[in-house]
Order: sequence, then C-alpha cells, then structure tokens
Amino acid sequence: QGTRDHPPVQAALRERLLGTVVACFKRHGAAAIDTPVLELRETLMGKYGDNAKLIYELQDQGGELLALRYDLTVPFARYLAMNKITNIKRYHVAKVYRRDNPATTRGRYREFYQCDFDIAGQFDPMLPDAECLKIVHEILSDLQLGDFLIKVNDRRILNGVLAVCGIPESKFITTCSTIDKLDKVPWEEVKNEMVGEKGLSPEAADCIGEYVQLHGGLDLIEQLLQDPKLSQNKLAKEGLGDMKLLFEYLTLFGITGKISFDLSLARGLDYYTGVIYEAVLLQQENDHVEDLVGVGSVAGGGRYDGLVGMFDPKGRKVPCVGVSIGIERIFSILEQRVKASGEKVRTTETQVLVATPQKRLLSARLKLISELWDAGIKAEMLYKKDPTLLKQLQYCENMGIPLAAIIGEQELSDGVVKLRDVATREEVRRMPFYTRFQKSFQQL
Amino acid sequence: QGTRDHPPVQAALRERLLGTVVACFKRHGAAAIDTPVLELRETLMGKYGDNAKLIYELQDQGGELLALRYDLTVPFARYLAMNKITNIKRYHVAKVYRRDNPATTRGRYREFYQCDFDIAGQFDPMLPDAECLKIVHEILSDLQLGDFLIKVNDRRILNGVLAVCGIPESKFITTCSTIDKLDKVPWEEVKNEMVGEKGLSPEAADCIGEYVQLHGGLDLIEQLLQDPKLSQNKLAKEGLGDMKLLFEYLTLFGITGKISFDLSLARGLDYYTGVIYEAVLLQQENDHVEDLVGVGSVAGGGRYDGLVGMFDPKGRKVPCVGVSIGIERIFSILEQRVKASGEKVRTTETQVLVATPQKRLLSARLKLISELWDAGIKAEMLYKKDPTLLKQLQYCENMGIPLAAIIGEQELSDGVVKLRDVATREEVRRMPFYTRFQKSFQQL
Repeated sequence: QGTRDHPPVQAALRERLLGTVVACFKRHGAAAIDTPVLELRETLMGKYGDNAKLIYELQDQGGELLALRYDLTVPFARYLAMNKITNIKRYHVAKVYRRDNPATTRGRYREFYQCDFDIAGQFDPMLPDAECLKIVHEILSDLQLGDFLIKVNDRRILNGVLAVCGIPESKFITTCSTIDKLDKVPWEEVKNEMVGEKGLSPEAADCIGEYVQLHGGLDLIEQLLQDPKLSQNKLAKEGLGDMKLLFEYLTLFGITGKISFDLSLARGLDYYTGVIYEAVLLQQENDHVEDLVGVGSVAGGGRYDGLVGMFDPKGRKVPCVGVSIGIERIFSILEQRVKASGEKVRTTETQVLVATPQKRLLSARLKLISELWDAGIKAEMLYKKDPTLLKQLQYCENMGIPLAAIIGEQELSDGVVKLRDVATREEVRRMPFYTRFQKSFQQL
Repeated sequence: QGTRDHPPVQAALRERLLGTVVACFKRHGAAAIDTPVLELRETLMGKYGDNAKLIYELQDQGGELLALRYDLTVPFARYLAMNKITNIKRYHVAKVYRRDNPATTRGRYREFYQCDFDIAGQFDPMLPDAECLKIVHEILSDLQLGDFLIKVNDRRILNGVLAVCGIPESKFITTCSTIDKLDKVPWEEVKNEMVGEKGLSPEAADCIGEYVQLHGGLDLIEQLLQDPKLSQNKLAKEGLGDMKLLFEYLTLFGITGKISFDLSLARGLDYYTGVIYEAVLLQQENDHVEDLVGVGSVAGGGRYDGLVGMFDPKGRKVPCVGVSIGIERIFSILEQRVKASGEKVRTTETQVLVATPQKRLLSARLKLISELWDAGIKAEMLYKKDPTLLKQLQYCENMGIPLAAIIGEQELSDGVVKLRDVATREEVRRMPFYTRFQKSFQQL
C-alpha cells in the first residue's frame, strides 16, 4: 500500500519527464552521485523533527541498525562530511521512503522519486541561490505545465518578523508551521490558530499578520529595508540585503516575472538557514479547481548551511543550497493530461518489425534481424515460426512500430527487402540488403 | 558495510555502462517497468531456497510485513501474475539487496544494481531463448571486455543425466550444486564431494562425471541424441531437441563461435525449468590470474516457466526466459581499467565556462550564461563576483571544460564574445552575441 509498480506506459512517461529534469541539471554543470537506499539509523535521527516517525526501519538481523532514506538531502550532507568534500555541484535522482498515509490521487506515495540539485561550497552571496531559482524556472518552462509562480522568502527575515513582534524563540518553529498555512486558508483562521492553539497574544498575531500577508518584488524589499521595526533586527536586515541581491541577479536572468517575494512562505524543514523557495502551478481557466488544489507545490528548496556540520566530527560547516523537483506531483499532472488527450504513449522504441509473408522463411527473418541489431537498428520479430502477415502488421499497429521490413520468396531471390510504412501502407522502397538497407535507416 | 556511495567519477562510469546495456535492451524492443524496492515478505519467501536468510526484512512498525527485494525476477513474476499479463518483453535496471558477506574486491555488495531483460509469453520454442543469448553476445561485444564464452545447458538435460545415473530425485538439487563447482575445481574433487558429502555411490558419481565433463556444439548435441542411455529419458530428449533448435538459431545469428554447450553448467536458482546460460570472461594474456578468478560470470539467466504460476491464485503459468547482466562485476573491471589507463573521467558535461577578465563584469556574465542556458548550452560560471581569469581557466582545465566564453570591457563595447579553446589556448573566434554564438555551438 502506497508503493506501486510502474507498468510500461508509466515508465515511459517517467523516462520522458526525468530526461527533461536531468538535462537541465546537466546543463548547469552538475555531476551525478548516488548514495545507498540504506542509511545508518543514527544518520537519519534528529534531522526531520516530528517526521522521524515516518522513517522505515530495518529489522535488527545482526549488524548495523539500518533505515531507508527519507530524503536525498541528509544522505548528501552525510556524504560530504564523510568524504570531507567542501565544494561540489551535484544532482541525484532516486527513490525515498516515508511511512506516511499515502494520498495517491495527490501524487503522494510511500516510495517515490526525488530529483535534487544542490550546490555545496563557500561562495559569494546569492550566486548559487539565484542559479537554483533559474533551474526551477527552466524546468517548469521546459515541461510546459502552464503558468507557475515561484515564492521566495528567507528564514532570517521570517525569524526577524517573529522577533520584532515579540515572539519568544522557543515558539518560532511552531509559529512558522501556522504561517505556512496562509496559502490555503484566510488570515483570520491563521490568526485564530496562533492565538487559540499556539498561545500568542492577539496583538503579537496582528503584528505578524501585517508582515506575512505581504508579497511583491524589489519594491517590497526596499520598503521593508526602510521598515522602522524590521530594519532594526540584524538577521532580518541581512536577509533583506541578500534578498535584494538575489532579485538583482534574477532580473539579469530575466525571470522576475514569475518570482514573488512572499513573507508567508515558511517551509517545514528545520534545517533551512537562509533563502527558501517553493514553486506552485497557477490555475488555468479550463482546469477544475479540485485538480489544482490537489497538486500543490511542484518544487522547493532553500539554503541549509548547518546540516553538513552535524555530520562532521569537528562540526566544520559546508554552506549548501539546493532544490528538489516534486517529480511525483508533476508526473500525476502529465499522466492525467496524457489520459485526457487520448495520446497513445509508445512504450518501446522499435523502428522496424522484420516480417515474412509466406511460411518457411524463419531463417531469413533471423538472419536479417541479426544484421539489423548489429547495425544498431531497433528491430523486433514475432516469436513464431510461421506467423501470418496480418498478425505481423497488427503487431506493428498495436506497438506503434512505424516500419515493416518484409522478406518473401520473391525478395529473397532478388536479394532485396520490401520496406513498408505501416501507417500509409505504402511500400516505400525495395533495396538490396544489407548495406544500403542500413543507410536508409540512418535517414529515418 | 557492503553498501557504498557512488561519487561523481563512479556515477559517470556507471552511466556510460548502463547506457550501453539499456541501448541494447531497447534495440530488442523491450519496454521499461519499475517495481517497488519494498515487497511483501510472503512474496519473497520460498523462492530462493537456502538464500532466504539473505533477505533484508523491515521492522514491524504496523501495517504489512515488508522486505527489500532480493532480485528483479521474483518481483517481475509477481507483477505479471497480479496484473494478469501473459505477454511482455521488458527490461528493468534497479538495485537489489542481500544480507551477504560483501566481497567488494570481487564486485559483490549488499546493495547492487541488476540489469534484467525478460521475455514472457507462450511462443514457438527457442526463439525468445535465442534472442536472450544474442543480447548477452551484443552487450559483451559492445562493452569491449575482451574475449568471452557463453556456456549453455538445459535443466532437463541435467535432470535426465541424474536420472539415468540412478540419482533419486530428492538429491537432484544438492547434486547440481556440487556439479556447478566443476568450473573451479577438478573432477576428482567434485566426485569426492558427491560421494563423501552428498552420499552418492562412486559408480553413480562416475556415471555423472562421464556426462558433465562434456562440452561442445551441435556435434555434441547430435552425439547425446544418439546416446543409448540419455536418449531413453523423455526430459533429456526434449531438452536436447530444443538445444539443437537453439544452436540452429544461434548459427543464423552468427554467434556460435562464443557459445559452448556445457553439461556442467547447473546454476543455483531453483526456479529454472529449461535452458540455462552463463557468460564468463576469458583470460587475457596480459591479465593477472587473480584478477580474472575474482571476476567470474558476468551474465546469466535461463528459462523459468513455473515462477509466475506461484503467484497466480489459479496457478496459471506464463512461460518466461530472461537474462541478467552482472553489471557490478563488469563495473569493477571497467573501473580497474580506467584507473590503469590513467584516463581522466569527466563527471560533468559542461561545454563552456562563462568568464570575465576584469572586475565589475558579473552582470555581463549572468546575462550571457542565462542566454546560453536558455539556448540549451551546458554552461557554468564561477560563483564569485570578481574571479581572476587564471582561476577561471584553471577551473576549465580541472573539470575538462573545452571552451571559455570570455567577455571583457572591449568585447562588451564591441558586442562580441571571445571563445577560447582551453587546451590549445587559441582564441578561435569573436562573434556577436547572441544568435550567432548559439549557432557556433551547434557545430561543436
């Protein structure tokens, strides 16, 4: 339950999707790494807050106590610390595991792919951060998912807001998780939760509300830099200064049109220390509302400068910033779209079926297909001694194979092959096999 | 222990290797499927004989009792039965898990990749089986691993041999596991084990020995078809008839030169029911003996007509034949070879570094790199505001980036970009950005 098989159609769609994402990561100079699915339990403990209960643990069968990885970020940090790597740009596409309540219609599973891109190293401010946002922008554009918005905030600004509104530091995290709901429910409800459940005073809540309902661009950053309260807070001022720099870089990238500085964005994970971001798809006029609510964010990430240090015996820090593409949600959307369009997804790449129109020609088929394979051509034949031509052509139609290479007695004695276009039924060429045959394939 | 990270160099080599294997699977018309890493424990139980103790089990944290998959074949059979699929050609490249004693120098790990290709369905005899052998032949040739031999046998022939030598059926499996050692130790030792440990009479062992020391091609098959004892055994006769057909097909494929009908091949797994095969690399003159002993078989598989039926409530059978490429062993060989050759493996695919020779040109770099990315060009820049040109060119050399696109004040005012070949230091062209710039990249 909550895990699933990926039959050929899904696997083919997934390959298409992952291909686009990985192409983008490579375009930005990332190297691939791979880490084991099994991690030591102690590596994962204390990194996910309340979510630790969702970690799958292996039975103690002797040997180390193991667990299945919960995400790709913690293993990455563990990898950096273990190998004393202080500088890398890597991507990682792999499955992670959570003992969650699966919500499969929303693309939430217990076993699912994550696609992560991260930049580790001590660099000039906001340059890697800006690249991460550019990557999100490129991928969502390349996938043609419709209009989207990338919300950006900074943990330091958020903490500054809480501080200037008089919230004690012990309540920062729990208050943030309430603020995070502002994209789904109106401010009044958020305020009620702050006051009723989290024990904030109504005045403190209103103070927070004045800030976290703001969103905008460079103008808003300038305005907050002048804000009499916020500008007095060191962390917030640092965060706002960096945010300004980030927006300058994003302007040079030409992507600020889809970026919103949004003070309500908090993101759940404890380990973020600076810029955070999350991309959401915007509703299309012709979409059903419920579909869109179901989809939610399709990418997210941020800066986590302290995580690697947690794995280093001497606590040496390696600043990191990264982004995770919500591939399962995007996959759900693509799948629905393909279903709606009635597109027939090909699950194989076969270019030609080797066929015979008469009996007793199996040897000729085996000889020809073998030469095709050796020439790098994707070819199939039916595993029958004497199939009818009709059966063979039907197979082409079912599987979307565009061509049939037909050898009958006549062709054999003439030393040629008949190449049939399955869709048009035109028998386009006769040609001597095998060398010229091969050439004509290269033109396909 | 027994699991490992794959740092960029290994991940890049692995991508190269898997690319070759998957290209072959696709050339033969296979569709990809994916199944979960987690299977129900009951699915895996009773499929692996003594090896069941090597299965990783998950802790009972509520919900179903789960285990990590041990191979890709049993999940494939479970998938076919669950979805009532009677006809498919699929490949699957994924990690499997075994609580084995890792022997990492021999490429044996607790977490490792398997690359499987299988054909399921009721077809005319030996056609899918022959294709599996062709695939092994193509992959080992494509990978240029040096000379190899594919040993072929049939469980029915082996069982026939045991029957005509008077071995009781209850001792078939244990006797087979002794026979299987014949590729590593001389016959005398094998015989001693049969008599001393397995309780066979010396006469019975000698009878077996007469057969299992045989290997050859079509001649040997013909000879055994005339064998007074063996030809009386129904199973053996069936197996020999199919073996003859298989060799006819392999002759048409032109690959019998590397195929040996070898009666000592037994293979461990219980579920094989017909043809079995295993590919081994042959020793090169310049190789050290110990390296080769360490490597062993690099591919194997066979026919398993009963496995799917074990998962079907009504026991409906789906005949299957498949092959598994021993990617970890091949990877060890490739890795050693790359190390020995001193080849510097590129871990990224970056085509160009965007560089500036003077200070205060960050904006120009950001603008140019953004246009390059949008044009699909793989580009990087240093995450520094004002890096020296030397540092930038050194980065190209370290990472194997072939080109630097340099924009200085002069270039900016002329509206051109200087394109520098990093290896030759030639500054090959100046051209106006950005449209013609893009064209020149397409020629790279």
